[in-house]
Amino acid sequence: MRIESVDLFYLSMPEVLDIGDGSQDALLVRVRAGGWTGWGECEAAPLPSIASLVCPMSHSACKPVAASVIGQELDDPAGIQRIGDLVRAESLDLLQADHTLSGVDIALWDLLGKKTGEPVWSLLGYEVAYPKRPYASMLFGDTAEETYAKAKSARFQAAKFGWGPIGKGSADEDAAHFRAAREGLGPDGILLVDIGTVWGDDVERAALAIPALNECGATWLEEPFVSGALRAYKELSSGAGNVRLAAGEGSHNIHMAKHLVDHAGIGFLQIDAGRVGGITVAKEAADYAAASGITFVNHTFTSHLALSASLAPYAGLEKHSICEYPVEPKALALAITSNHLEPDNQGFLRVLDAPGLGMTVDAEALRPYLVDCEIRVGGKVIYSTPELGE
Amino acid sequence: MRIESVDLFYLSMPEVLDIGDGSQDALLVRVRAGGWTGWGECEAAPLPSIASLVCPMSHSACKPVAASVIGQELDDPAGIQRIGDLVRAESLDLLQADHTLSGVDIALWDLLGKKTGEPVWSLLGYEVAYPKRPYASMLFGDTAEETYAKAKSARFQAAKFGWGPIGKGSADEDAAHFRAAREGLGPDGILLVDIGTVWGDDVERAALAIPALNECGATWLEEPFVSGALRAYKELSSGAGNVRLAAGEGSHNIHMAKHLVDHAGIGFLQIDAGRVGGITVAKEAADYAAASGITFVNHTFTSHLALSASLAPYAGLEKHSICEYPVEPKALALAITSNHLEPDNQGFLRVLDAPGLGMTVDAEALRPYLVDCEIRVGGKVIYSTPELGE
Repeated sequence: MRIESVDLFYLSMPEVLDIGDGSQDALLVRVRAGGWTGWGECEAAPLPSIASLVCPMSHSACKPVAASVIGQELDDPAGIQRIGDLVRAESLDLLQADHTLSGVDIALWDLLGKKTGEPVWSLLGYEVAYPKRPYASMLFGDTAEETYAKAKSARFQAAKFGWGPIGKGSADEDAAHFRAAREGLGPDGILLVDIGTVWGDDVERAALAIPALNECGATWLEEPFVSGALRAYKELSSGAGNVRLAAGEGSHNIHMAKHLVDHAGIGFLQIDAGRVGGITVAKEAADYAAASGITFVNHTFTSHLALSASLAPYAGLEKHSICEYPVEPKALALAITSNHLEPDNQGFLRVLDAPGLGMTVDAEALRPYLVDCEIRVGGKVIYSTPELGE
Repeated sequence: MRIESVDLFYLSMPEVLDIGDGSQDALLVRVRAGGWTGWGECEAAPLPSIASLVCPMSHSACKPVAASVIGQELDDPAGIQRIGDLVRAESLDLLQADHTLSGVDIALWDLLGKKTGEPVWSLLGYEVAYPKRPYASMLFGDTAEETYAKAKSARFQAAKFGWGPIGKGSADEDAAHFRAAREGLGPDGILLVDIGTVWGDDVERAALAIPALNECGATWLEEPFVSGALRAYKELSSGAGNVRLAAGEGSHNIHMAKHLVDHAGIGFLQIDAGRVGGITVAKEAADYAAASGITFVNHTFTSHLALSASLAPYAGLEKHSICEYPVEPKALALAITSNHLEPDNQGFLRVLDAPGLGMTVDAEALRPYLVDCEIRVGGKVIYSTPELGE
């Protein structure tokens, strides 16, 4: 089949707050071909991603993403790889392109799965989709008391706290939050901590957090530094005791993911299929991590469409069993699909055994969140919000 | 002084061709503060960069670039560093932001230089701006005969050929171009070759080019691979004979530049101030390269405003003496400034000893190239092309 259209939809909560909650807006992708529709989602700033889909060409290696997708043949997984390679080559100098491609790639897998009747994880070559243990992904409370209350009522035995005030004050203040989280979770809970890159590449500052994290039995310390600070990661990792470092959500291509595996001393590689280049690149990263003895984990803080797309790349890796599960998404994120991925009675999460990503996008429910956009260049309208529907 | 405004201007040739010539459009940046005007240029896709300046906030680490610049205090170089750090933190998840920041940072240096009456290279801490040896940066001809003719008429003794057909056919066809370039330049010419990343991370394919490059006495082989392919670079470098590898133009932050220095076995680090995060980050990369025994080189294929901005970061590094000089820019690129950086009688190029970047932006000459744009989000116009003038 031939790709007929790629449409982007900017969705947003009525009010977007200045907090570390990435579920306040969304960029939904619809791809149509041969009578089929695939859906994907970019974990990205909507407007710059829309611009990178439709902007005029600057030169031979700086073309809009749409130029390398629309009109292409798609009949098998190799076709998706080929389209991604084309985007990376022809949009080489368009920085935002990796984020835009991510959602398009996800939609292409969904489309191919629907056409062939196969789940995406099966198309990726996995024979079994193993159950994952979800962890509740939450923001730290504004105070240690709030963090305790959140931990106490955490939905799962495993919980990750991140962003909010953490890392911005003193090491003692951070430690109070870590202890509150441990106390709230109880001694058997799995405690994960996310610094949200606020320490830049400051190893000394990060090292101050290590004793309290070990005392509290934290399993991982996530993103103490920005994605590229490989040396800082490596240095911190050698003195981190039982705490392993986790990173990777900032990766926007396979190379960044590999650099973390090769040079950063991490224990967990966290990949967001909506940023790294889609399911195709996330699968490549999962294979690379597994071959290097590093645990692959999805990064997902938004919708269940994004969750399904983030789980597929490592669904068949039995030992890579932990998974991020958004427990505080905004209403918009829940509205994106009419069905949701729920843990079973034993608390395990499974991707669906259904064609494509197995998720049903609910156009009607999304209409109130749709942000009307228009871009005019040289007097011509090059983007206006398309009609939302299957 | 307080930053009052940041304005972006999308400029374009009437027709943009599907060739590797990045001078066919431009994104000019104007920053105003305290009665002064600074000018900069993003080496980036204009429309996505405009969108990343003005888009609505998605969350606390995905804000538009303007939010971290407008209203900020700027009185010294530390102020520029602080603004850049703020953009990187508050626009962490907005991929395009690094490219947008690059032009803004350049304009801030120009502004500060004009206010203080100092050249940017002096504000950067250099006491002397050393002369550089320019190389003529050109596209390969479509045939070896054309490449020969181009080399024969090259403006400087040093010339770089890139893009066009190179790397896309057989190794023998490439070798014919290399030999034609050497023949045209003569035995004493400095021959540089640029593959434009077309080999991805294919070391075997790249290795096929090494014998002919050594036979022709090429000084460097530029971008055989994409920026992130550190392992491929390292592997190729060990068998490259007298040819040194050159890379770095794709770096959009200091970390990527450092990774090439640390892990890629390169001999030359090529940094475009209009992409890497501006003059501030380019200077940091130059210092890092120099400390590691690797030669820093500017990357510039467009205007003389961009050229001045790309030279300042290593103006005071005497041993890092080669510089890229665009010899085939489109009329638009030349029209951006009314003055131009010309080599002296001995063929050496010097940055100007004048306030800021020393370049005069010619608003009148640019008016015919100005592309009128408008972006509407939720019924509100969030960008429309500003009035072009000082």
